[in-house]
Amino acid sequence: SRSINLAVIPGDGIGQEVVAEGLKVLSAVLPQDVKLETKDFDFGARRYHATGETLTDADLDALKQHDAILLGAIGDPSVPSGVLERGFLLKLRFAFDHHVNLRPSKLLPGVDTPLKGEPAIDFVVVREGTEGPYTGNGGTIRKGTEHEVATEVSVNTAFGVERVVRDAFARAQARPRKKLTLVHKNNVLTFAGHLWTNIFTKVAAEFPEVTTDYIHVDAATIYLVTDPARFDVIVTDNLFGDIITDLAAAVSGGIGVAASGNINPSGEFPSMFEPVHGSAPDIAGQGKADPTATVLSVALLLRHLGYESEAARIEEAVSADLAERTGKPARSTAEIGDALAVRVAG
Amino acid sequence: SRSINLAVIPGDGIGQEVVAEGLKVLSAVLPQDVKLETKDFDFGARRYHATGETLTDADLDALKQHDAILLGAIGDPSVPSGVLERGFLLKLRFAFDHHVNLRPSKLLPGVDTPLKGEPAIDFVVVREGTEGPYTGNGGTIRKGTEHEVATEVSVNTAFGVERVVRDAFARAQARPRKKLTLVHKNNVLTFAGHLWTNIFTKVAAEFPEVTTDYIHVDAATIYLVTDPARFDVIVTDNLFGDIITDLAAAVSGGIGVAASGNINPSGEFPSMFEPVHGSAPDIAGQGKADPTATVLSVALLLRHLGYESEAARIEEAVSADLAERTGKPARSTAEIGDALAVRVAG
Ligand SMILES: CC(C)[C@H](C(=O)O)[C@@H](O)C(=O)O
Ligand SMILES: CC(C)[C@H](C(=O)O)[C@@H](O)C(=O)O
Repeated sequence: SRSINLAVIPGDGIGQEVVAEGLKVLSAVLPQDVKLETKDFDFGARRYHATGETLTDADLDALKQHDAILLGAIGDPSVPSGVLERGFLLKLRFAFDHHVNLRPSKLLPGVDTPLKGEPAIDFVVVREGTEGPYTGNGGTIRKGTEHEVATEVSVNTAFGVERVVRDAFARAQARPRKKLTLVHKNNVLTFAGHLWTNIFTKVAAEFPEVTTDYIHVDAATIYLVTDPARFDVIVTDNLFGDIITDLAAAVSGGIGVAASGNINPSGEFPSMFEPVHGSAPDIAGQGKADPTATVLSVALLLRHLGYESEAARIEEAVSADLAERTGKPARSTAEIGDALAVRVAG
Repeated sequence: SRSINLAVIPGDGIGQEVVAEGLKVLSAVLPQDVKLETKDFDFGARRYHATGETLTDADLDALKQHDAILLGAIGDPSVPSGVLERGFLLKLRFAFDHHVNLRPSKLLPGVDTPLKGEPAIDFVVVREGTEGPYTGNGGTIRKGTEHEVATEVSVNTAFGVERVVRDAFARAQARPRKKLTLVHKNNVLTFAGHLWTNIFTKVAAEFPEVTTDYIHVDAATIYLVTDPARFDVIVTDNLFGDIITDLAAAVSGGIGVAASGNINPSGEFPSMFEPVHGSAPDIAGQGKADPTATVLSVALLLRHLGYESEAARIEEAVSADLAERTGKPARSTAEIGDALAVRVAG
């Protein structure tokens, strides 16, 4: 009999609330014969304040025993900027080699966008997750003086770039439009730019059916608001991916519906799935958070584990739910979760 | 009697056409007693192909003899990516220490935006121009092999950050709303992030009337499409500034109307003014390019040289011209320039 052994990290702020709904929908969608086991982990601001710990080696060992990880949100204003980001979120992505950061953007019917017209938005960003300016490489000299110098080093390797470019080509190949856009800034960041561009060109030769193009990251932000329909699959560096996926979420319905996967395609380490939004402490504990992004992250999780039809059922349920929202009074976090659970079970 | 000794760099593609209109409007707006002298420089793709040169020391000496520089656009697909950008555009910004890269965004009446509603967009981005990931620091080892490693080093100094932060505070102080937003990614780029954040906080104490806030660059792209009216003055790093100013241009009327100044506030070197758009080789030579961004760059140039009322006259002329465009047939580059010249003279 099949089983899913899931590590659950509710985290801070609205994380608890949205994860509860994600699990509700997950339980409802799974066939009877699939045994779901979950284990909660208390990472985040509370644990940091209580123990000073963000993510220990023992934590990593414990997480590693699972098939996948579902995360709500990590971050709280009581913790200095960077501590939980570098000490937990990025540490986990690096430790588990989550080099494919998958962020789909689809403007679903009934969902509001800040853009005029009804642009046909349906693309996925494959963001590199373990290199670039995120490595923590760099440092500071003469800190706090008028002669301070701070550096940040973007590290890019052929190994790291090729595997994510290859993953993106395979995803583009599997989609109807078969189009892949490289986003970088190769006219200024010429060292990293040449590496990315050369590998992109080399791998392209193995995927003759995939149409390719290249856009500078600054121009990409223009297209994301003037012609988002031009994109099918985008592959890009860690920092550029961070920036353009927030913009992509904003134009395709907002971060309330933006899901993401931090994927280790080899399966050597569990992959982690999380909404793109943060912990939103201002609305935490009030039942106001929209759990849709978490529920869609559960769909990505199921697809990653091979439960394609269950993933599709969740996505259809979300589409149907969103299509019926217009003009209705706002529902609570749990009401949205309940409605989605009913739909996927039905 | 007064005089302006202007270096003119038409450059590539539509650069020639738009600069001609910029100069037309400049001549028309200047009072009789101001003597305008211009000298053309042939930088860009043609010179590069003919001589292999992009910008020599002798060129820099010659440019330095001028009060300011007006640039059309540099760049052509026949030149490998990075050659003219690093060899000319960035070389000039660094050589002339253009550390204040000024990019105003204002959605003028009658101008179309991809955003719903009629957002009240009126802000200015002060982008640092001589540091960050633009320094060219970094390199490649094992080039072309499967073990290639390419690095890009973002260099940030207290000296460089403080002067641009101070400039931005002074600009915010001089505006009615007196609000300054720092955009960075201090939760991930913690070395540079701490430097920027600490200096921002320190300088803020000297400007008690200025309201401040901080936004991560990824979130800033969301606000630029969902609530651009929240911004008054933004100060940010070179790369983040590059990215968000293209997005800012897109939401406030497009790069057809986006002007910029590469400013050396000390006056030790001439400042350079240029439209944000590129050389657009696809429409070059057809009289189709909109010279408005160049004309608005001329206004920034005049303001920088102390001709405030002339700068304002140009901006009013552009506003009036844009307000009357809706529903009219498209005009040629020269027709728009003529119309603006008539307005500023009138
Ligand atoms: C919180 C932060 C470390 C993170 C990132 O920059 O990757 C977030 O913005 C994201 O996009 O997942
Ligand atoms: C052409 C390029 C070097 C330049 C930059 O990245 O600064 C351009 O994008 C700009 O914004 O002026």
